[in-house]
Amino acid sequence: MNPDIMKERQNATFNIEKLTNILDGGPEKTKRRREIESMVLSDPDFQEEDQNFLSRSERYDQAVRKSAQMILKLREYGIADPEEIYIYKKMAQGNCHEAMGLHFVMFLPTLHNLADPQQSKKWLPPAESFQAVGTYAQTEMGHGTHLRGLETTATYDPATQEFVLNSPTVSSIKWWPGGLGKTSNHAIVLAQLYTQGNCHGLHAFIVPIRDMNTHKPLPGIVVGDIGPKFGFHEVDNGFLKLENVRIPRENMLMKYAKVEPDGTYMKPPSTKLTYGTMVFIRSLIVGESALALSKSCTIAIRYSTVRHQSELRPGEPEPQILDYQTQQYKLFPLLATAYAFTFVGKYMRETYHRISGDIHQGDFSELPELHALSAGLKAFTTWAATSGIEVCRMSCGGHGYSCSSAFPDIYVNFTPTCTYEGENTVMMLQTARYLVKSYRQVKAGQQLSGLVSYLNEPKQRIQPQTVAARPTVVDINDLASLVEVYKQRAAILVELAAKSIQQELQHRKSQEDAWNNSSVDLVRASDAHCHYVVVKLFTDSLGEIGDIMIHSVLSTLALLYALHGIKNNSGDFLEAGLLNVPQVHQTSVRIKELLNQLRPNAVALVDAFDLHDKKLKSVLGRYDGNVYENMFEWARRSPLNATEVHESFHKYLKPLRAKL
Amino acid sequence: MNPDIMKERQNATFNIEKLTNILDGGPEKTKRRREIESMVLSDPDFQEEDQNFLSRSERYDQAVRKSAQMILKLREYGIADPEEIYIYKKMAQGNCHEAMGLHFVMFLPTLHNLADPQQSKKWLPPAESFQAVGTYAQTEMGHGTHLRGLETTATYDPATQEFVLNSPTVSSIKWWPGGLGKTSNHAIVLAQLYTQGNCHGLHAFIVPIRDMNTHKPLPGIVVGDIGPKFGFHEVDNGFLKLENVRIPRENMLMKYAKVEPDGTYMKPPSTKLTYGTMVFIRSLIVGESALALSKSCTIAIRYSTVRHQSELRPGEPEPQILDYQTQQYKLFPLLATAYAFTFVGKYMRETYHRISGDIHQGDFSELPELHALSAGLKAFTTWAATSGIEVCRMSCGGHGYSCSSAFPDIYVNFTPTCTYEGENTVMMLQTARYLVKSYRQVKAGQQLSGLVSYLNEPKQRIQPQTVAARPTVVDINDLASLVEVYKQRAAILVELAAKSIQQELQHRKSQEDAWNNSSVDLVRASDAHCHYVVVKLFTDSLGEIGDIMIHSVLSTLALLYALHGIKNNSGDFLEAGLLNVPQVHQTSVRIKELLNQLRPNAVALVDAFDLHDKKLKSVLGRYDGNVYENMFEWARRSPLNATEVHESFHKYLKPLRAKL
Repeated sequence: MNPDIMKERQNATFNIEKLTNILDGGPEKTKRRREIESMVLSDPDFQEEDQNFLSRSERYDQAVRKSAQMILKLREYGIADPEEIYIYKKMAQGNCHEAMGLHFVMFLPTLHNLADPQQSKKWLPPAESFQAVGTYAQTEMGHGTHLRGLETTATYDPATQEFVLNSPTVSSIKWWPGGLGKTSNHAIVLAQLYTQGNCHGLHAFIVPIRDMNTHKPLPGIVVGDIGPKFGFHEVDNGFLKLENVRIPRENMLMKYAKVEPDGTYMKPPSTKLTYGTMVFIRSLIVGESALALSKSCTIAIRYSTVRHQSELRPGEPEPQILDYQTQQYKLFPLLATAYAFTFVGKYMRETYHRISGDIHQGDFSELPELHALSAGLKAFTTWAATSGIEVCRMSCGGHGYSCSSAFPDIYVNFTPTCTYEGENTVMMLQTARYLVKSYRQVKAGQQLSGLVSYLNEPKQRIQPQTVAARPTVVDINDLASLVEVYKQRAAILVELAAKSIQQELQHRKSQEDAWNNSSVDLVRASDAHCHYVVVKLFTDSLGEIGDIMIHSVLSTLALLYALHGIKNNSGDFLEAGLLNVPQVHQTSVRIKELLNQLRPNAVALVDAFDLHDKKLKSVLGRYDGNVYENMFEWARRSPLNATEVHESFHKYLKPLRAKL
Repeated sequence: MNPDIMKERQNATFNIEKLTNILDGGPEKTKRRREIESMVLSDPDFQEEDQNFLSRSERYDQAVRKSAQMILKLREYGIADPEEIYIYKKMAQGNCHEAMGLHFVMFLPTLHNLADPQQSKKWLPPAESFQAVGTYAQTEMGHGTHLRGLETTATYDPATQEFVLNSPTVSSIKWWPGGLGKTSNHAIVLAQLYTQGNCHGLHAFIVPIRDMNTHKPLPGIVVGDIGPKFGFHEVDNGFLKLENVRIPRENMLMKYAKVEPDGTYMKPPSTKLTYGTMVFIRSLIVGESALALSKSCTIAIRYSTVRHQSELRPGEPEPQILDYQTQQYKLFPLLATAYAFTFVGKYMRETYHRISGDIHQGDFSELPELHALSAGLKAFTTWAATSGIEVCRMSCGGHGYSCSSAFPDIYVNFTPTCTYEGENTVMMLQTARYLVKSYRQVKAGQQLSGLVSYLNEPKQRIQPQTVAARPTVVDINDLASLVEVYKQRAAILVELAAKSIQQELQHRKSQEDAWNNSSVDLVRASDAHCHYVVVKLFTDSLGEIGDIMIHSVLSTLALLYALHGIKNNSGDFLEAGLLNVPQVHQTSVRIKELLNQLRPNAVALVDAFDLHDKKLKSVLGRYDGNVYENMFEWARRSPLNATEVHESFHKYLKPLRAKL
């Protein structure tokens, strides 16, 4: 163990294991998690080569092998609980993705949700025994967010009782689905249904795309890999061009909508049936943001205690770089954010499960708020984590660029969350739509409940006022007071956005143009709402923590999170008259004090995430702090070092001399 | 040509070619640039495969081939002017780097600067004919920014008149030099010089590392590639471990410092001899920031006019995504930034050349300011460009993640500028040191000149005041007035940082601790100084533009740049009492108007950068806008599509079925 990092752990003021237990949800949960993780650790089948040393084809090969292994081992160990499966897979995958991910996340769930009993009987057994490996083909080359714009067609032919599927244009080619390029032999294809001369909108169809035995593409199927990407190297995101592909009528998923043998269309009883899954996945992404930031902070903070550089005081040895205020200022607010998002992610999962229960009992009342919240928080947390990972990476100097740091993999495999499952700006605008609607309800005399209930409170301001005009009662050292000030900021910015729309309408703009011309304000309002929710939920979580020392250090983190957010958005708080200039100045001073206060606990706080070295896969972030010798070992395995002399010397460099 | 993008060009209010001429520095320069670029375009030797489809070893191979080709062709064409060589190489390299870059940028210049006449005679001919291919080995695994911390030793042995070089620890292994891993047979090694029992600090030594004929590593040399990185895939950044490597005394570069045969050390007349090169490279990086942002804006803006998505008005066709206010709000401020940095980069190059002239005539007076400015602007512009590239990428939805967009390459190959040639936070603190020193000079009664002369002006404020207390005279529609307000912000933040140091000293902190405890404020002051300089230089550049229409559109861009910066830092301006709340509110409104105003010229403004498709290498950013058909073509060339069925099916998926 590196002596510097050992000393850090000795200096911690709280019991690390106890904090880990809190994060896991109890000591038994920690124990079980470690049990599951050790199944991977001790398994020789998972002792594979670093994927950074492999070609893309080899990475894909490794991922498929791992997918197959995981299926077998999970059955062997009898692990069936979704949470435990998640733990197992995360450990086995490190910073990479699952080759067959969409089979589990979309193909099987869609069969469960949209197949009628007969279809279930036909398709679930082969899907669950991986005879049928599937993906979910919705996105097209020219169409993502706006589902009604999808162009793929499924035209019913009553003569043969088949659907004929086509990609009528280049932009209609299915594009991006994971596992589509090489892995899957089936795809659930979303297509515009045509029957009896009418279009009935998007429906889902089971389309066999490869021969079950030879795995060769079937007639009319043009399928392949969409090429190298930023991240997801090991996943075969694919394209699919359909050329008069015929499938039997029974391959349309008919639990709700149906097409009769004669071509008569029967519409589904309700249209919002996939609402829940979307909300669930977005809620999960909040947790992924927390994980990505936790990993990044673990690596950067551990390395910053091992790394010595420059001099603070002449003649003294080079200090640990974590002793530089600028380094603390980069990393500790992100550490606070990682904790904030961890608690928010937990809240989202719990709320989802609670509301799911309500929904099963026919109570949909809380769904719209959760839908709006999951959209906004998905955007808010993924944006923050994406930029945060890069701050952590760059705080490690040159070595942050080396793949041995794991930062390149963490970044490129996380940043897509900003785009998939709902593009972030679109997500923010969805939340804004809910906020503006809520605001109007209040104006119309309704009383709101839930997290938007602050819109009920009377506001004196309509126009922004001068700062001096408002008496200030905020205590910047009191979390409850800061929650209040974030809440008021959100209320004011929602009002500002709503008024912007109103003003545009008064200038005789249409509803749609008024919305578009206010969309920058709307995103700002959503952002403020999400920020308030995060500060509030982080603060609320502290109430559940009994251990005094842990409560104290987490309170410091929460305070830092709240004050740092104020500093970064001080214009909002000043503009709204919620804080005055001396308070904003005091915020800066207080932040510096909090950095000092957190310094001795920094390593302990990242240790508490309990991210095993094998999961982190970072030489810089090693638990034992033995960075340099291991970096040398890692580099020597670089494929370019397989030969002493690269062939390019003989091919180009030596001949060059002769030509000059 | 895609009709949407054609219409955009027809709608432009100015002559694109004329703006291109301004950016190039005159129509003749444009003509010559295009001549040079077409030498690459028409050359079959540069029609190579997209590097994204190659393994790392193949990418390196391709880069070495290209390096050798460029050397031959530049001689063949008689291109010797550094600016023209730069144009040629940029065109040939696209978004990649040169395998032998350090030979040209560091090895040859160091020989020129530090070799005595005899050494020049010995080493320059083989280096210029590529018998000796070299690199510059300064950074060690554990030591970057702080040069005095370097551990490599060169100990003089008078008995044999040799230096004995050693890497005494793991952390002393040379790490990161480009071209060191596989390409170079020589390295200029920076090492602590020991002779007659004394250490005389860092000196440069020519160390042969590979056999000139076989290219095999020489005895005592442990050399190799440091492994895969975030970017620079085609470059063999390397490690070098020296184990009692003996080189003749004459291999120490002895233009200034010397070691006599008996071991007597003769120190150099001056110690700041490499100052100039550093300043020059940092100044160049400002231009690289402009280029990276120009490329990114070109891709994102062109694609945003071709891409239709969702609906603004029900029943109407899907609008171009550039018509969404949120999209304009993402991209147009970055477009303004790209122009701002282009003009600043030009200023920095010109200033460097002017001051170089002065230096040759013995006038060093302007060097400290340029040194401080180049450090700060290097950090300011690379940070802005790094985050800006990612905003552009994410504004393109899913396709921004595909390597066919070129964004992944642009990002990973640009972001290292935040770290190399001086880590950005360290750079900001260097600028801050100059600013605080200047501030203290004013306090001591001195009169400053140059860009920091604003510190001469009397300031009424010492403590931040309430906003209402200060009468406002700022006109947010007037650039001169905005330059003034940025200047005052800088002055106030420099003062604030200086006062923070003073307060820390009053609390009996040492100078060093006071500095460290104020470093967050110091970075903020530097940032404000750089921001002021950019706004000022952009505004100044407009004065030189005669064409009315171009002057008008660039003025709009400059205004947007200035107002967007105010909006993003509104807390600073409010806190300092430089703007009042209604003005900040008005800034937001004005920005939205400017977005509208720029909309018709957006494509024309990126066209004016005149980045040839072959240089941009982006399917999304194609000049003709024919994105989708070309993306399909590109994807089909993905190596994973070389076979219909990937071997992993037979290896893992088929066997899996049998096991279940």
